[in-house]
Amino acid sequence: MNVPATARRRAILRQGLDLVTTTGFSGLTLGVLAEQIGLSKSGLFAHFKSKEDLQLSLLAEMERVVAEVVLGPAEAAAEGLPRLQALIERWFGWTARAGLSGGCPVAAGLFELDDQPGPVRARLVELEQEWRDLLAHLTGRAVELGQLRAGLDVQQFVWELFGIYLSHHASARFLRDPQADERAGRAVAALIGRAAGAAGTTGG
Amino acid sequence: MNVPATARRRAILRQGLDLVTTTGFSGLTLGVLAEQIGLSKSGLFAHFKSKEDLQLSLLAEMERVVAEVVLGPAEAAAEGLPRLQALIERWFGWTARAGLSGGCPVAAGLFELDDQPGPVRARLVELEQEWRDLLAHLTGRAVELGQLRAGLDVQQFVWELFGIYLSHHASARFLRDPQADERAGRAVAALIGRAAGAAGTTGG
Repeated sequence: MNVPATARRRAILRQGLDLVTTTGFSGLTLGVLAEQIGLSKSGLFAHFKSKEDLQLSLLAEMERVVAEVVLGPAEAAAEGLPRLQALIERWFGWTARAGLSGGCPVAAGLFELDDQPGPVRARLVELEQEWRDLLAHLTGRAVELGQLRAGLDVQQFVWELFGIYLSHHASARFLRDPQADERAGRAVAALIGRAAGAAGTTGG
Repeated sequence: MNVPATARRRAILRQGLDLVTTTGFSGLTLGVLAEQIGLSKSGLFAHFKSKEDLQLSLLAEMERVVAEVVLGPAEAAAEGLPRLQALIERWFGWTARAGLSGGCPVAAGLFELDDQPGPVRARLVELEQEWRDLLAHLTGRAVELGQLRAGLDVQQFVWELFGIYLSHHASARFLRDPQADERAGRAVAALIGRAAGAAGTTGG
């Protein structure tokens, strides 16, 4: 099960993750990846027992990269709202910040694998749920610290934040709208502003 | 170019559209579609010259269905805000309302084809832009009629509305969250509430 993380395997995972950001999970085959990295398909099978094993390994590689470029730096920010904001800033557009060619594979997977049962979808559901739980935890902490208003519907806040993330992904990566970052920043600031103000006192 | 819309072709398009709502565009092959409808691959080629021709024909079929189940009924509503709201109600979850098995192929395409250049992506960009223009037009009309406040940033409103649509798609179809409709309804009502109220007088 636990193949030692040799340099070769790491290089394959890095190139595979880069590829999956552009092709998505359905588009990723052992054949295409083998060609990209100059290995035979049987050479790749020495590292991964199946396409599914490769895909799950790529999700684990993605988690490692997200921990490095998003979570780690955000933890340096002060607890509560500053940490939530630091996380959001590094989360939006994180693939480019990680030097990857395409977009977030989880965002793509949400739409690509919605009707494709199996272990990759199941793992993506877990990752997505963990991410929402993390955001809910940070938002809840900001409420406890009095930085966001008491009684805030934290789950609704996170749900709407996800919408802003997905709209940013679609407008930046698909429509290539030069205003995508600005629109997302404005939407996030307004969401936080509403969550910070007491009901009835914040602007529309 | 313009193959006559025979009953056979229509049946193929209907089954192809159903398939593309579950597999997405990358997952749709002539082979899989041929198998589903009990035609040989060469039999399918008699109707469509290439996979790309099939995909573009399916987008046209989707437009026809959207006109029937979303646009037509919404036009019956009174001008301005009521029409915008009627459109939103029928847009969210429209594939189920049209009797299709999977999710919106445009939403999936936004993430699936963001890094895949070609005529299918180009057509999706056009469709997406036309849809945003329609929403902006209806929103602008609601401003003119005094149903939404003067000075509203209509593009930002539409951008955020798209986020709610995508978050609804992800939570309803991928996470299978039973609260997806309720959360989307609350988010849309709040967005419209903020757009309706004068700045400084609406709740957070």
